[in-house]
Amino acid sequence: MRIAVLGTGVVGRTLGSRLVELGHQVRLGSRSAGNASAAEWAAADGAEASAGDFADAAAFGEVVLNCTSGTASLEALEAAGAANLAGKLLIDVANPLDFSQGFPPTLTVCNTDSLGEQIQRAFPEARVVKALNTINCAVMVDPDRVPGDHVLFMCGDDLDAKRETLSLLGELGWPAERVVDLGDIGGARGMEMYLPLWLRIMVGRGNADFNVRLAHG
Amino acid sequence: MRIAVLGTGVVGRTLGSRLVELGHQVRLGSRSAGNASAAEWAAADGAEASAGDFADAAAFGEVVLNCTSGTASLEALEAAGAANLAGKLLIDVANPLDFSQGFPPTLTVCNTDSLGEQIQRAFPEARVVKALNTINCAVMVDPDRVPGDHVLFMCGDDLDAKRETLSLLGELGWPAERVVDLGDIGGARGMEMYLPLWLRIMVGRGNADFNVRLAHG
Repeated sequence: MRIAVLGTGVVGRTLGSRLVELGHQVRLGSRSAGNASAAEWAAADGAEASAGDFADAAAFGEVVLNCTSGTASLEALEAAGAANLAGKLLIDVANPLDFSQGFPPTLTVCNTDSLGEQIQRAFPEARVVKALNTINCAVMVDPDRVPGDHVLFMCGDDLDAKRETLSLLGELGWPAERVVDLGDIGGARGMEMYLPLWLRIMVGRGNADFNVRLAHG
Repeated sequence: MRIAVLGTGVVGRTLGSRLVELGHQVRLGSRSAGNASAAEWAAADGAEASAGDFADAAAFGEVVLNCTSGTASLEALEAAGAANLAGKLLIDVANPLDFSQGFPPTLTVCNTDSLGEQIQRAFPEARVVKALNTINCAVMVDPDRVPGDHVLFMCGDDLDAKRETLSLLGELGWPAERVVDLGDIGGARGMEMYLPLWLRIMVGRGNADFNVRLAHG
């Protein structure tokens, strides 16, 4: 499958590399076509890895992963272009974390809205699914580095988009029974507002190799 | 031990009853001394159960549990009186959920502040520990109704207050290894902002008999 990964940070590069390993063609998108980090990634990851600007990557992808900084996501997707996103599954991995005042960061949107909802509203023809934002990227692509049947959350308005997301998550090592569907895209509020708790646990543990499991009666 | 439980809703009554069963003297506090719900609870729960207004209950308790609605907590604690809280362990169980616009509720404070922090600031001589707010009250007093080593979170500025909280949580069935200390009272942001995710999971499952476990590498 042709996959656009928007964002050249560690999340985008980690997901992009794993998707290439899994046999996909991946184009890493950045603000400017000449992004050094993206070019280096593409050169190292073989023939199926390429780099381009946001619009180029989005046009290339049958599926688009938003791995940009949450504070820059709407701008990045604007640059990608609504026409290049229309009809496509857009998996939003980003968290709207503002580190400008130091650690811990605050959320730039929460409580009555979320980044996932903002993206779906701004790009109504994209089929947005929020997923993967509740774990570190090392765990995203290698769930077994954390033992046990820990879970991911997922939400979105389009049922087919969620089925396609489940399929892609399955390839990454997340079987469907470990993906909790939180319903419509409004579930992104809870998924993003979980980050302050995640960050506190991370600080307490001293590493990001953890996740939650669900226990139920 | 003499314990004040502020709030006569299902959380306060459930915790109060279990603490009486465990051999504590419990006074349920409400806005007005003649609260019918509190009187009924006290009559049904035996000689060690009593009822009073917020100030009466807080004066009685060696430990105070805030089980009022989060939107009314600061007012309730004001009525309880700073002098009656000074030096005492004050366990804040409340969530600042505003249901006035329907379901799902929003948080009246989040992101850059939390109810737990507001309470600690308003009552600097109380030793505030945030705990128990991340689960349903049936699970609070009977953790085994959900199988597995699922966890509670806890935070607060006073280390002795957290040790005393651990002891009380142990009596309720939560061993110390299942209580995750998130550090200072600022951790209340994450604990309260987790509620939108909890509520989505609850709606999806159709019941509140669940909790999270931590999986780590």
